[in-house]
Amino acid sequence: MRDVAVIGAGCTTFGEKWNVSFRNLFVEAGILALEDAGLAGEQIDAMYVGNMSAGRFVEQEHIGALIADYTGLASYHIPSTRVEAACASGGLSFRQAVIAVASGMEDIVVAAGVEKMTDVASGASVDALTGAADREWEGFVGATFPGLYAMIATDYMNRYPLTREQLALVAVKNHYNGARNPIAQFQQEITTETVIRSALVADPLRLFDCSPITDGAAAVVLAPLERAREFTDTPVKVLASAQASDTITLHDRRDISTLDGSVAAGRRAFELAGLSTADIDLVEVHDCFTIAEICAIEDLGFCKKGEAGKLTEEGVTALHGSLPVNTSGGLKACGHPVGATGIKQVYEIVQQLRGEAGRRQIDGARIGMTHNVGGTGATVAVHILGV
Amino acid sequence: MRDVAVIGAGCTTFGEKWNVSFRNLFVEAGILALEDAGLAGEQIDAMYVGNMSAGRFVEQEHIGALIADYTGLASYHIPSTRVEAACASGGLSFRQAVIAVASGMEDIVVAAGVEKMTDVASGASVDALTGAADREWEGFVGATFPGLYAMIATDYMNRYPLTREQLALVAVKNHYNGARNPIAQFQQEITTETVIRSALVADPLRLFDCSPITDGAAAVVLAPLERAREFTDTPVKVLASAQASDTITLHDRRDISTLDGSVAAGRRAFELAGLSTADIDLVEVHDCFTIAEICAIEDLGFCKKGEAGKLTEEGVTALHGSLPVNTSGGLKACGHPVGATGIKQVYEIVQQLRGEAGRRQIDGARIGMTHNVGGTGATVAVHILGV
Repeated sequence: MRDVAVIGAGCTTFGEKWNVSFRNLFVEAGILALEDAGLAGEQIDAMYVGNMSAGRFVEQEHIGALIADYTGLASYHIPSTRVEAACASGGLSFRQAVIAVASGMEDIVVAAGVEKMTDVASGASVDALTGAADREWEGFVGATFPGLYAMIATDYMNRYPLTREQLALVAVKNHYNGARNPIAQFQQEITTETVIRSALVADPLRLFDCSPITDGAAAVVLAPLERAREFTDTPVKVLASAQASDTITLHDRRDISTLDGSVAAGRRAFELAGLSTADIDLVEVHDCFTIAEICAIEDLGFCKKGEAGKLTEEGVTALHGSLPVNTSGGLKACGHPVGATGIKQVYEIVQQLRGEAGRRQIDGARIGMTHNVGGTGATVAVHILGV
Repeated sequence: MRDVAVIGAGCTTFGEKWNVSFRNLFVEAGILALEDAGLAGEQIDAMYVGNMSAGRFVEQEHIGALIADYTGLASYHIPSTRVEAACASGGLSFRQAVIAVASGMEDIVVAAGVEKMTDVASGASVDALTGAADREWEGFVGATFPGLYAMIATDYMNRYPLTREQLALVAVKNHYNGARNPIAQFQQEITTETVIRSALVADPLRLFDCSPITDGAAAVVLAPLERAREFTDTPVKVLASAQASDTITLHDRRDISTLDGSVAAGRRAFELAGLSTADIDLVEVHDCFTIAEICAIEDLGFCKKGEAGKLTEEGVTALHGSLPVNTSGGLKACGHPVGATGIKQVYEIVQQLRGEAGRRQIDGARIGMTHNVGGTGATVAVHILGV
């Protein structure tokens, strides 16, 4: 297998983009990534696109071909493949691109993600998202994602020391970071009070515990490491790519407040990279809800089960703490266009490792990790990147 | 890159399976493939699932995880990834599995495809299928797939010598083959009259020119060629895997009755395998409509443009002709569960190359090809297999 590097990255601003269509969102991110890599479209050998539910959001499937066409690449007949794993679609798109380059089958490969969640055909965003859970055993009986993660939070808070204030501090921290990220949907700092006084969505989760409905797209360009310096002075090496599955339903889990998929993918990623948690300078975790960030920090092995609330309160995970978590603002403040999130995480790490993260730059960052979750943890993708 | 082989294959019967759910359809095919390879589930390293539109058909996304769970593999946390490219989803699932094994990243990989098109949530099969075309420029103005392929047929018949009878003979041949295939949805032989007197769907295409709405699933197991004989005495080698894109809309094509995606993917496959059309003993092409088989035979290079009608009439493409096309019965008689079709094509070639195709066996078949199309040709996957 060949070593693989990221040679370019681009991302649209995230938000409610009522005046931009699904396909144009993608094109914007693709152009930014190609410009960043100094590449022309015809130099691309293949493309992967992560997308969860364009079929239901905009009544469009066959996303790979659509995107190849609207980026002007159809006439080159390059392979373009959609990958779907609910909210982990972006992470899996990145992983497939890594495999394609590592195999030697392709050289220059774009990994992208896109989701258009506002201005949708049916208006049924929440119901479409429930397609990430088990439709027959969860969706049909009324479970929604806030409800499922509320069950995780309730179980967690009954077993481990996590206060309502500590949970709120996850959102406060991510809004602080988002306010320093020009692509973030929410650019406002908030306080613990903002979270605790916000509307109750699914007890104990309140509005500000939840990531929003978002439109956005992100794209990165991969190449064999040995060719990376043809295109950039700052290649970012892919040190590990890991993926794990778990039961799709929450009720079938061994333990509903430990995501075994995160545990398995995290371990595998560290093993592949020959690294440990102490080597990680920053991590983008899948904080679709505040409780999800708490679980992720623990399940990836950064602290013991039950300690992440205290870590958050102590500022360890803050922008200038010893383990910055979600410097981008995370799903909470950046927004969560589900198919794009996994690629946006890579985009953030690439910016940080290149020293281009502006007001949220982590000094001397050399190794970063991404953690992208589908559903309540039935798919998890973990990547480690380094310079 | 490592050489890759198919070490097992399984397929459900295809048809209107009102009493079988989406997930159980898949499980049935998966078990058949594993039994055929003599493998236990825990020996699998990764899984790819081709599926077009479970989001709209059964309101379920996150198919990879669902399938990993319902095949009992969630506790092993193996990576499971859904791939989508409309009706070419199965072909791309196979290709991703080939890349994963070739890369050295995984050893034993299942490539599968599944679609549940009857007993669906919305009843909107035709509209869901239109998601394979361009929703904004084709679907919203009323184009359906029979309509789009009717335009291809009309253009073709205006420019090349193809009679209504020759077109009908594609369906007659495929029903003849399907009547000899125990998994086929239609097991009845038909005559030219059956086709020509059937209801007009979209002029010139009649009911018997169209593949049906079908439930079904198929799965194959891949391994590195060097390990294949641990599992089977009859490994089938993957000689080439090629994929090409084209414009998603028909009106943007250079020529609407030549599928440039088929031309590009076919050429690339022959180049990769170091073979030519003369080496192919049999081919499964994507006959979603009778006209599609005519175009495919030509676009893959088996004859010049305009000659496939005559070839069909002369029996060249018949079961015991010199170039048997769609020995399985094709999409026309086997049925077309869109995500499963590309894998079913591989299943057919594997059976033929092993000499296990019963009443439709091609004597001495050693090299076979599959040709799987998404939409009106915006994605094409071509594979060459050999023993």
